[in-house]
Amino acid sequence: MKKLFDFDEILFGADYNPEQWPQEVWQEDIKLMQAAQVNCVSLGIFSWAKIEPNDGIFSFDWLDTIIEMLHQGGIKVNLASATASPPAWLCKKHPDILPIDIAGQTLWPGSRQHYNPASESYRSHARRLIGAIAKRYGKHPAVISWHINNEYACHIQASFDDESARHFRYWLELRYEEISHLNRVWNTAFWSQNYESFDEILPPRKAPHNPNPGQLLDWKRFWSDKYVELVEMELAIIRELSPGIPVSTNLVGEQFFFDRRALSKNLDYVSWDSYPDPALGLQAASRNAMHHDFIRSLKADRPFVLMEQVNTQVNWRAINSQKPEGVMRAQSFQAIARGADGIMYFQWRQSKAGDEMFHGALVPHLGAVMPNGEETRAFREVRELGQELKNIKSIIGSIQKPQVAILYNAESHWALSLPSKPASIDTIQCIETWHKAFWNDHIDLDIVHPDDDLSGYKLIVAPALFMLSQTQANKIESFVEHGGKLICGYFSGIVDQNNHAYLGGHPRLLQKVLGIWVEEWHPLQKNECVTMIDQDCIKTEIHNWHELVHLAGAQAIASYDDGALAGNPSVTRNYFGKGSAYYLAADIDAPWIETFIISCIKKSGLRKRVISQAGLETSIRENDTHIFIFIINHNQSIAKADLASLSGTDLLSGKTFTGPIELNPQEVLILEIARSKSVHCP
Amino acid sequence: MKKLFDFDEILFGADYNPEQWPQEVWQEDIKLMQAAQVNCVSLGIFSWAKIEPNDGIFSFDWLDTIIEMLHQGGIKVNLASATASPPAWLCKKHPDILPIDIAGQTLWPGSRQHYNPASESYRSHARRLIGAIAKRYGKHPAVISWHINNEYACHIQASFDDESARHFRYWLELRYEEISHLNRVWNTAFWSQNYESFDEILPPRKAPHNPNPGQLLDWKRFWSDKYVELVEMELAIIRELSPGIPVSTNLVGEQFFFDRRALSKNLDYVSWDSYPDPALGLQAASRNAMHHDFIRSLKADRPFVLMEQVNTQVNWRAINSQKPEGVMRAQSFQAIARGADGIMYFQWRQSKAGDEMFHGALVPHLGAVMPNGEETRAFREVRELGQELKNIKSIIGSIQKPQVAILYNAESHWALSLPSKPASIDTIQCIETWHKAFWNDHIDLDIVHPDDDLSGYKLIVAPALFMLSQTQANKIESFVEHGGKLICGYFSGIVDQNNHAYLGGHPRLLQKVLGIWVEEWHPLQKNECVTMIDQDCIKTEIHNWHELVHLAGAQAIASYDDGALAGNPSVTRNYFGKGSAYYLAADIDAPWIETFIISCIKKSGLRKRVISQAGLETSIRENDTHIFIFIINHNQSIAKADLASLSGTDLLSGKTFTGPIELNPQEVLILEIARSKSVHCP
Amino acid sequence: MKKLFDFDEILFGADYNPEQWPQEVWQEDIKLMQAAQVNCVSLGIFSWAKIEPNDGIFSFDWLDTIIEMLHQGGIKVNLASATASPPAWLCKKHPDILPIDIAGQTLWPGSRQHYNPASESYRSHARRLIGAIAKRYGKHPAVISWHINNEYACHIQASFDDESARHFRYWLELRYEEISHLNRVWNTAFWSQNYESFDEILPPRKAPHNPNPGQLLDWKRFWSDKYVELVEMELAIIRELSPGIPVSTNLVGEQFFFDRRALSKNLDYVSWDSYPDPALGLQAASRNAMHHDFIRSLKADRPFVLMEQVNTQVNWRAINSQKPEGVMRAQSFQAIARGADGIMYFQWRQSKAGDEMFHGALVPHLGAVMPNGEETRAFREVRELGQELKNIKSIIGSIQKPQVAILYNAESHWALSLPSKPASIDTIQCIETWHKAFWNDHIDLDIVHPDDDLSGYKLIVAPALFMLSQTQANKIESFVEHGGKLICGYFSGIVDQNNHAYLGGHPRLLQKVLGIWVEEWHPLQKNECVTMIDQDCIKTEIHNWHELVHLAGAQAIASYDDGALAGNPSVTRNYFGKGSAYYLAADIDAPWIETFIISCIKKSGLRKRVISQAGLETSIRENDTHIFIFIINHNQSIAKADLASLSGTDLLSGKTFTGPIELNPQEVLILEIARSKSVHCP
Repeated sequence: MKKLFDFDEILFGADYNPEQWPQEVWQEDIKLMQAAQVNCVSLGIFSWAKIEPNDGIFSFDWLDTIIEMLHQGGIKVNLASATASPPAWLCKKHPDILPIDIAGQTLWPGSRQHYNPASESYRSHARRLIGAIAKRYGKHPAVISWHINNEYACHIQASFDDESARHFRYWLELRYEEISHLNRVWNTAFWSQNYESFDEILPPRKAPHNPNPGQLLDWKRFWSDKYVELVEMELAIIRELSPGIPVSTNLVGEQFFFDRRALSKNLDYVSWDSYPDPALGLQAASRNAMHHDFIRSLKADRPFVLMEQVNTQVNWRAINSQKPEGVMRAQSFQAIARGADGIMYFQWRQSKAGDEMFHGALVPHLGAVMPNGEETRAFREVRELGQELKNIKSIIGSIQKPQVAILYNAESHWALSLPSKPASIDTIQCIETWHKAFWNDHIDLDIVHPDDDLSGYKLIVAPALFMLSQTQANKIESFVEHGGKLICGYFSGIVDQNNHAYLGGHPRLLQKVLGIWVEEWHPLQKNECVTMIDQDCIKTEIHNWHELVHLAGAQAIASYDDGALAGNPSVTRNYFGKGSAYYLAADIDAPWIETFIISCIKKSGLRKRVISQAGLETSIRENDTHIFIFIINHNQSIAKADLASLSGTDLLSGKTFTGPIELNPQEVLILEIARSKSVHCP
Repeated sequence: MKKLFDFDEILFGADYNPEQWPQEVWQEDIKLMQAAQVNCVSLGIFSWAKIEPNDGIFSFDWLDTIIEMLHQGGIKVNLASATASPPAWLCKKHPDILPIDIAGQTLWPGSRQHYNPASESYRSHARRLIGAIAKRYGKHPAVISWHINNEYACHIQASFDDESARHFRYWLELRYEEISHLNRVWNTAFWSQNYESFDEILPPRKAPHNPNPGQLLDWKRFWSDKYVELVEMELAIIRELSPGIPVSTNLVGEQFFFDRRALSKNLDYVSWDSYPDPALGLQAASRNAMHHDFIRSLKADRPFVLMEQVNTQVNWRAINSQKPEGVMRAQSFQAIARGADGIMYFQWRQSKAGDEMFHGALVPHLGAVMPNGEETRAFREVRELGQELKNIKSIIGSIQKPQVAILYNAESHWALSLPSKPASIDTIQCIETWHKAFWNDHIDLDIVHPDDDLSGYKLIVAPALFMLSQTQANKIESFVEHGGKLICGYFSGIVDQNNHAYLGGHPRLLQKVLGIWVEEWHPLQKNECVTMIDQDCIKTEIHNWHELVHLAGAQAIASYDDGALAGNPSVTRNYFGKGSAYYLAADIDAPWIETFIISCIKKSGLRKRVISQAGLETSIRENDTHIFIFIINHNQSIAKADLASLSGTDLLSGKTFTGPIELNPQEVLILEIARSKSVHCP
Repeated sequence: MKKLFDFDEILFGADYNPEQWPQEVWQEDIKLMQAAQVNCVSLGIFSWAKIEPNDGIFSFDWLDTIIEMLHQGGIKVNLASATASPPAWLCKKHPDILPIDIAGQTLWPGSRQHYNPASESYRSHARRLIGAIAKRYGKHPAVISWHINNEYACHIQASFDDESARHFRYWLELRYEEISHLNRVWNTAFWSQNYESFDEILPPRKAPHNPNPGQLLDWKRFWSDKYVELVEMELAIIRELSPGIPVSTNLVGEQFFFDRRALSKNLDYVSWDSYPDPALGLQAASRNAMHHDFIRSLKADRPFVLMEQVNTQVNWRAINSQKPEGVMRAQSFQAIARGADGIMYFQWRQSKAGDEMFHGALVPHLGAVMPNGEETRAFREVRELGQELKNIKSIIGSIQKPQVAILYNAESHWALSLPSKPASIDTIQCIETWHKAFWNDHIDLDIVHPDDDLSGYKLIVAPALFMLSQTQANKIESFVEHGGKLICGYFSGIVDQNNHAYLGGHPRLLQKVLGIWVEEWHPLQKNECVTMIDQDCIKTEIHNWHELVHLAGAQAIASYDDGALAGNPSVTRNYFGKGSAYYLAADIDAPWIETFIISCIKKSGLRKRVISQAGLETSIRENDTHIFIFIINHNQSIAKADLASLSGTDLLSGKTFTGPIELNPQEVLILEIARSKSVHCP
């Protein structure tokens, strides 16, 4: 068990921006926070200009006041490093901090995140700022956590200016040492791109045609490293001045611009901002579950924090649907089910003005209370959730322990997203297809890096794992040899870590374990579809992609029934050592995948604890003494599950459940089961 | 009665660009103009380079000649200030006049309107040019009107260069005096955007994310003021050198980039360029009617001029449909019906070359007469209309006097168009929905500013009037209190003049008069639809938007029948003082709106003079002695109307009509009725 | 008969880039080439950086080695001038060679073709490079052809920088001599665009609105001339140092950015890169046939070379379909059928890395041979084709002699593609409509310039020949007068060579020969359709465009049956001299066009040698002694043809065919018929 904070409650609160309001509102805020069961606020995220109104001139009075007011009110502070949005004076004095886009255009101040992450001017001023803040509040009793920057890279993924070009060259020189090495890795012999010295290298700026893919991939790696450097820079200062206080930064779920595994490595915990689109209905729930698993797996040994969500409606989509009654609650419990020990919102009080004045908040324009004396729904749903969280403190510090893992590698993702493939394949979409199938089958899973320790899993899935090193391939082979099950998706293992294609039959390094090789890739046009037929004579449609596979030891367990490749294998199985390895050579429709998974699961010795129907999410957390089974009905209708012989007490209602049960729309059960009682404990 | 010109005819003619043709063509032009009944031409609109071929060197001989030829031919001149397109020498000598776009890119010469409206180089050269022209021709007997510039802002709405930045800062300093005031209004505490001095402020150039909305709104206001300054600059010079001659500038119907009310304030009359797309069929007619009403309402006490239209086919749409036979005539009479005392075209003679060589003209490439001796349709339809206009001189100077007004405020329009709303709402589309319903119901109306005098109206409509000041709200409340009817659309009264949201329940300042408050906005996705049911059990569909409304004195006259808000009010009525106020909380389908209007009209004591079927436009002009009822059939089939006891003489045919009548497609009646005879005079 | 090379085989090979591979691979390459029947490779296309790794330092050792190895292996070399992609050192030293786009943005190095074709820095370095290469290898016995640059202008069509602006001004001064002449031609009186001197002229850079069309058209002409200059520059050097060796450059089929006729004028032969999209099915075949005809007609007196195609799958479309088995072979024979004496591929060995690492190749990643010892399909299909080509050497040097020509003029194409037309008309799409109808009717044709000699043809078609000079019109009139048939499509003959509209009734210069004039253009919206009815009472649909035509001697052979122009002629015929001239005033659906052609063909005295069904391509090459009838089944099913009394020996199978025959999908016949035997010889 690993508690994140020196605090006995589930973190519950919001971004708080008191600088937007006169002081008379602050007193009311504290009272309303207490009413809403808020126990923590994120403070100062966009306060650089307020804290340092002029170069080196710091103004802490207002921050002293509000932190003290919060402390007196019993509300903890997740204090920001305030580096997310440089003030106007800094941009005027050091215009070199402004990012330059791929076409050479300056991105000017006036919104937010208008800094080149590689800029030394930005970094030196950021360091001074963090130092001042951490020194002043590093040991304040209200401060239980640090919040570095905000949603790194969500607007700026790179800057193409000359300073960044210099940093890039230096980074390349460290990586390759000799220019001939770089020329070989980038294959600059192609299109006459040879470099005689590192001095000749430029960022991949706007060009007549596709730039060198080696250059593009290293450019992505370089910027990922720049973001990791920023985190390390802030961490070092905070750790020195605020020892023992945990530090995190809030990630964006849908964004993979930097290597989140590398960036999270030295953080104390991971946290993210979750904004599923209510208009997506059930897909919002399944996709959100995937992002929770992505984030949790970055530090699988401890809980994470849901750092931002909205209670009602965001303002940045083209059409911003409201969350229906109960959905915010169900999604909050979903976060907890998948490992969160904190539920936070953006933001506490809705802004009167500014770009996010129509973003939902705990206290809306209308107020916590309406003219007729009733609570607004916005406020009521939050307050009620806050009260419920008091009842589930026993889950704090418990974690998930899945037996299944999906492999994800940011570098493979980036390499696959470069132009000029047989067809474009979206790594995350491939992962979502698999994740959703497991989610529908009620199987918990991790999303891990192929370099991670895989020995604890019984089944691993590699969907479009385009890039694969020899070491990684060896590990996968060994995993199967020792009894693991491998499911390998199409277009995997194509290139090495230099993005060089393996020769001699894809996926070269997995030929042995899979018992096949691929001769041709056959992408399908949008209006094309072929059919496959499996051993049980079930026919299933294939879209987007299929491959010509040759067997070399494996058996076909399904074959194409029509199209250019009719009669050839579409899915193969190879027994290897004590395990077995499947290859899916095509983009097969989801229902077949779900059925396939169930059969694999059975063969892997995994068993489902709860039999539920689709749209009922079940997920398990555990600690040394208990397991906690979460059952959440994301459907808009009543749904059924069967606990069989399991028996547990729902932490929310206090009632005991066993056998067949029914859940209303958005209903949530959290069954606590003592380990000694449970016959199914791992 | 207010005659625009010292001239006893309806203005009839076209833009005339003799500089594109050798002098031998000019003589033929005069004769053809006479044949076509043309009595006025707009001259010199794009002649800067011809008038001032080099810096300070003026060449007037050619202009002297053609003006004299026109004068001798009995054709009046609407003389241009020629400032619309700066010559090449000016751009080469003063490249600072070129506009810079939001991304920092120069907009180069070679087309037209390539000047930064704030540029002092542009302004000083423009002043010298106008001075020279006005001095030379200001008292010429042929000149009956001045034509300032051309379609202001149709390509350039702003320039983001450094000179404009300086002007913007100066404008802001005048507006806010203290930087702290600006910080408060722009809410720069959000996203760390605080300014320590006006010097730090930049135009809202390309940025990583949405710029501050206060900055964006003031940027729009600033540029609107710059355009008003340009008009005032030209006006002052012309008024001094050409006293008594009326001045106008041709507006673009569909464009609202500057505040047209402010810009028109000191002009002698308003005029506009009307290019409805023939491919739109009946919608072209209803939309065109709306734009006529927008323009006429800018100076409601006098007629306006239709400064440009095409007789056949334009060249700037992707696919340029021809106007079918009769449509140009019907749309010309529509302009007159809604207040025009002039019908002008672009252009007299079709260009042989240049970007608009395929834009229709009165004399096409083929000529006025074809090889077989017949007139081209292009020429014939114009000539025939010119002859008809001789018969309707009695309408000159008469005006419309509607009893209904739609409220429009350019600043509200701009504020609502900024990003980050619950969903995007198009002010003009909302107005068009209402206007079209009134048009279908045969009710004339004005489109006025909420600061205008509303006391003459019986019914006012506020569609998506997002911004509302306390003064405006007071006036609306008083209007209802004294017996007026108010129809208020959704998402109205949300922000004050600083674009700050009102707190405590939208629409805050209209809560009393409407007897309701709104708790939540529920935009609908494109594929979503909910149903409402009214007091008569009529069910109607709702798209795009609906709101959760609470009653506080009002009654629900319709409610949602399904969806997230089922059972809640969708339309409310509140009796207030001697009047009543309706709130429509949703984007309700058009047929219900039309029925609703008819019922409101009846209750307001308004009465329709003519009962007509849809697509038959009826509109009324009046003067001290007569009313003129226009009836125009825009349908492609015969349409019916019932004059009931009305009896009038058609100015076009000389026939008298009463009781039920029928009109052929494109047929037009203009019934003149002496006031003493009419029982229905207001 | 005109043989292209001093070589007795059909050229068969590929782009070869040995610099991407270590030398140990080269030896294997030679052996595999021999196995694949490869007899020639294109070498050095992207080798500038390898040949000249630093300014003026040349490195030929590697090239000496590989050329010698190829020579020893009996493989000929098509040697590149290597100027397609400037090395990094050159861009760093002379950044002025980088192209600047219309918005002022630099196009940076890192991909390919990053040079401004007008740059003197580029040209001087290119000259030195070509000189060095041609000097070293100009007389090497392996070198049988020169390959200038690569796919000119495929990414860069123009550069808007200041150096180019100076060249443009100089070019204009040569063309117009007096600025007043330019002002007249560009009609700069429109929109105040007058120039006082050439110094004031700029490239048509990004502007507020459409630039002057005269400027735009001359800008296209200027850049076309710049590309012609580059070819002439390289030609002069190569001709001096490598006398007698033929020179070409590989054109891009779908691109018409420069005047390919002018550019090809002094080349020894034309060649092109053909990449039909397999996803288009039968349309890929018919469109490809058109591009072959476009290219062949550039030098109609001799064969051409298919310089690049792919055997399997490209990498640069969004979704890259595989060529099904047999399609590559059928398309190769299609090229030969339409005049090719060489079949080359991109590329020999698939790259391991670089932008085109997923572009198909003769030796794929998997290799020529698979782990199970079988050949890969990629390699096998090539090898088999290479073997077949040995059997058809007798066709070398034979040519097509069509009796039908479609007129195409690049300047007309460019002028018609400028903005601001009644609707946008795509010249190539119009030509494709006609070409496909002839292809379906099994009629060979040329695509020639209106300035070319037309006297050898019996039928000429002018589809959307927007620009027409007096000389060209005279020639067409004379062609008809002397017995030719003319089919003239809509919107032809509208402007003269200065892009000035003719006055007095379009198409002015063809009024006499056509016996009609056009009064109005009526484009149709996407959802509009009208019907026409012909003399045989057949009704056919019309989309996109129709015109109002007046008869002046011609007869209507079809008329509009509905729509705005109902009752007016849609197709007319005029007997003129000994010939006749048709005018098609509308975009009539394809089936009617095919039937119409058959009827015209009959009347022209042309006869089809082979009666075949649709999708069966038939085409004829001939020399002094034989004719070669190609019959290719592009359908996916068996297709029938009737040779009637023709009897010939299939060069591929050695069998003799006559009377009715059947062809399997992708099957190819090449019937050789001795002239003395053939009753149908021309």
